[in-house]
Amino acid sequence: MATVLSSQVSELALDAFRAALPADAVLTGEDELRDFRDPFAFPTWDDYTASAVLMPQTVEEIQQVVRVANEHKVPLWTHSTGMNNGYGGPAPRLKGSVILSLRRMNRVLEINEESAYAVVEPGVRWFDLYDAVQAGGHKLMVSIPDLGWGSVIGNYLENGATYLPYGSDMSAQCGMEVVLPNGDLMRTGMGAMPGNRAWHVYKRSLGPTPDQLFMQSNYGIVTKMGVWLMPEPECYMPLWLRVWNEDDLPALMETLRRLMLDRTIDNVPQIWNTVAMASVLSTRAPWYQGAEPIPDEVIDGMARELEVGRWLMRFALYGDEAVVDHRFRKIKEAFEQIPGAEVWGQKHAPAAIPALEHPFDRVQGGAPNLELNQMTGWYGGEEGGHIGFSPVAPLTGRDAVAVRDLLRGLVEKKAGLDYAAVLIPINARSFIHVPMAIFDTKDEAQSRRAYDTSKLLVQEAAKHGYGEYRAHLDFMDLATDQYSFNDHAYRRFAETIKDALDPNGILSPGKQGIWPRALREARQQG
Amino acid sequence: MATVLSSQVSELALDAFRAALPADAVLTGEDELRDFRDPFAFPTWDDYTASAVLMPQTVEEIQQVVRVANEHKVPLWTHSTGMNNGYGGPAPRLKGSVILSLRRMNRVLEINEESAYAVVEPGVRWFDLYDAVQAGGHKLMVSIPDLGWGSVIGNYLENGATYLPYGSDMSAQCGMEVVLPNGDLMRTGMGAMPGNRAWHVYKRSLGPTPDQLFMQSNYGIVTKMGVWLMPEPECYMPLWLRVWNEDDLPALMETLRRLMLDRTIDNVPQIWNTVAMASVLSTRAPWYQGAEPIPDEVIDGMARELEVGRWLMRFALYGDEAVVDHRFRKIKEAFEQIPGAEVWGQKHAPAAIPALEHPFDRVQGGAPNLELNQMTGWYGGEEGGHIGFSPVAPLTGRDAVAVRDLLRGLVEKKAGLDYAAVLIPINARSFIHVPMAIFDTKDEAQSRRAYDTSKLLVQEAAKHGYGEYRAHLDFMDLATDQYSFNDHAYRRFAETIKDALDPNGILSPGKQGIWPRALREARQQG
Repeated sequence: MATVLSSQVSELALDAFRAALPADAVLTGEDELRDFRDPFAFPTWDDYTASAVLMPQTVEEIQQVVRVANEHKVPLWTHSTGMNNGYGGPAPRLKGSVILSLRRMNRVLEINEESAYAVVEPGVRWFDLYDAVQAGGHKLMVSIPDLGWGSVIGNYLENGATYLPYGSDMSAQCGMEVVLPNGDLMRTGMGAMPGNRAWHVYKRSLGPTPDQLFMQSNYGIVTKMGVWLMPEPECYMPLWLRVWNEDDLPALMETLRRLMLDRTIDNVPQIWNTVAMASVLSTRAPWYQGAEPIPDEVIDGMARELEVGRWLMRFALYGDEAVVDHRFRKIKEAFEQIPGAEVWGQKHAPAAIPALEHPFDRVQGGAPNLELNQMTGWYGGEEGGHIGFSPVAPLTGRDAVAVRDLLRGLVEKKAGLDYAAVLIPINARSFIHVPMAIFDTKDEAQSRRAYDTSKLLVQEAAKHGYGEYRAHLDFMDLATDQYSFNDHAYRRFAETIKDALDPNGILSPGKQGIWPRALREARQQG
Repeated sequence: MATVLSSQVSELALDAFRAALPADAVLTGEDELRDFRDPFAFPTWDDYTASAVLMPQTVEEIQQVVRVANEHKVPLWTHSTGMNNGYGGPAPRLKGSVILSLRRMNRVLEINEESAYAVVEPGVRWFDLYDAVQAGGHKLMVSIPDLGWGSVIGNYLENGATYLPYGSDMSAQCGMEVVLPNGDLMRTGMGAMPGNRAWHVYKRSLGPTPDQLFMQSNYGIVTKMGVWLMPEPECYMPLWLRVWNEDDLPALMETLRRLMLDRTIDNVPQIWNTVAMASVLSTRAPWYQGAEPIPDEVIDGMARELEVGRWLMRFALYGDEAVVDHRFRKIKEAFEQIPGAEVWGQKHAPAAIPALEHPFDRVQGGAPNLELNQMTGWYGGEEGGHIGFSPVAPLTGRDAVAVRDLLRGLVEKKAGLDYAAVLIPINARSFIHVPMAIFDTKDEAQSRRAYDTSKLLVQEAAKHGYGEYRAHLDFMDLATDQYSFNDHAYRRFAETIKDALDPNGILSPGKQGIWPRALREARQQG
């Protein structure tokens, strides 16, 4: 029996996993493991490779796996479905970890139409939940992200964005079941009481509420979660706002904050710059052949030709038709104070959503698809990748300009990449700025430069008061380092809890910069 | 130096506290301590009395107090202002604890009009925050509870309800500063990054978000918190719904859930039964002199004479006048399907709120007052008390009837008290049922019966799947016991974290049933 966490799983441990799981649930073949690498990593890079993959199908199997891992000191890297693209995909932070993939735990356990919620397992994808809602004839909508292939639970646990009105902060999640690092099974909130009727309708515990501790952490394995669904409104109206000048951004953001604060707009919008939008609609080559970043005059041409403007916002209204009509008029009047700005859109009945032509209109209507995956092909072919660098800022014109200028400067000057940006007002008071560092994954130098630039961005943004909301495997530690108030009090707190819950440090070591004690000491020594 | 937590503070420790604090900040006189008892406890009861009270004024003083408490193994019971009436007031769970009262830390540190939030210290009361908003001329509203004398932070930390649209779940809280049990100072969320601009506008950390761990817990002392404020709407319309039959309750709740789920109603309503309403407007004697619970015929008479019906709901609309008008029509039409039901109300400009006559209209408009404190005088004089027993249930007609029948039966038959109930739909999917166990605090037998009944209610409600959202000192342990899924996995988890963060067990031992290791062992032995 190993005494410290080993970065390569032993045959003994593998045998124990094989004894705990069905025959086909332990993958160790080189071909099989290839599917669990970061899809955007250069093919020869092997910093984040796993030594095996386990695919349990039940809570009891997970508990068994956790017990074996404790006994053999095996690091387990848990993902729900592993579609964490841009942040490392399914790959583990610690090389040689055993991946615990929950893809086979894919049951929608309940859809409650009356109280408008679902209960899902971690392998349930947005597609699956949507299909289950449709198949049951429920008049409910799921708040979904841009790509439908990911896990509902996985997205929530990573603090990922979704775009309907329940997309803000942690609105939709309610009530979890968790396997703790010692194999124990816990239910949070009202679920801690056997037979409690309010598990998935009331968010808090009697006592401290632990749910958010299991988000972006390595404290437990979430095996069930309640997800609030929105009743279908009478009317759905996806909208567009287009402005023509780069410097219309602050006025756009100021107006948007006011309209979100008074709930005239209550979904999660996206604001795309010209290059980001062009990367969905086209590839780079027809626009510009230079190796240096696309110059402003070319961007202006793209803005006109593609009719996307310099900034294009997607957003939507939901509700009674009379309220939607009032809000549309108010929004149009407010934004069209900006010279040249236009707001437009069309009303639909919810039944029409699956057939809407534009993928944005379907995403904001809760109908999942994969069409936005196109974006990563900007630099040619289907081998494009991107890195999710994504700092949070207050939703003000001043902050929007400050973050844009800082990041655009670094992306263009340091990485020599085009500045493709999507701004996501995640609530009425803050937005996430995602400068899509898009690169050709077959070009090692360009890939390396993209990663190096991201690391520079993390540090430069922090100097200006903007912090990552989520971090790629490759700079998780660096991102965490920036949260250094009072000699890293928050990290020391997170480590104290880690050591208490997971003394052997088996669950996802290094996730979000939280390392177990043994590995902290080993890393300090060298 | 004491080796285990002592239930009586030593002179040595008191001297150390006196050295750490200003002269007037250590209270030990019998008269001074009397103000820190449960105001509703019978005068001779002494289960929850403190041995001293400390009143620091700065974060540094708190850190000093915590260091002394660790050194001398002194249990500290923290409150913000201690207006936790119905749940034990300012008194500590463990007799002999030293109360750490934060009443003197009462600064409103920031009001940000642009991003609509305030940052407050724990001693800031609703009155203070409201006054600061008004004094600054900010067009912002605070979501407040019924009584304005309590602490903003204290209320949030206890999961208390407030009644404007930000009253649901944990909507308004954003970003904390906390003194940990070892005296360390931590900032949560984006505040963990020095100089981060998004501390009070974005709710999550990079990594696990610990904020909810500090609610209803004894893991830390919150010294600052961000509170989101709502921009003043164009129009405010407080509303009433009255129904005449006890059995109109399920139809009322079914209609209400639909109107809350689609956000037609988006504040936190209250639904009062006749007796609860009568207890605000009158005393018992004129209605009924019998010792047994008031019979239904008498209640019907009260309902008619006071014009409050058998159930009276208060709620409110906020927004553009056109939207408020639409919603009012829709709400009126929906509820008036119930025979005899009436919905009415009047529109106001926000500037008119402070002068509105009915305290409900001011509370829902964010103008704090104390008029509802009247209620506890039901059984005569000014010496009335109440116990907050408050289980959570799904917001359905079926659950409303089940909880009402269960609790009414027990309150009337076991306690011989009148069934005075307020139902609070805390979000669109759940409500808290508060059967106000109102009693004359000068009547020891009636007081004892009220506490005994509350304990019975806790257990009976749990058998039917309904759990306490908050518990009085006197049955905190019992309430926690009901959350027993998987051999009390949640409590064991909470204890693991407690022992890791607070190895000496100095912070609020016993709060919400969480005891430090030494006291768990001592309690098991005796």
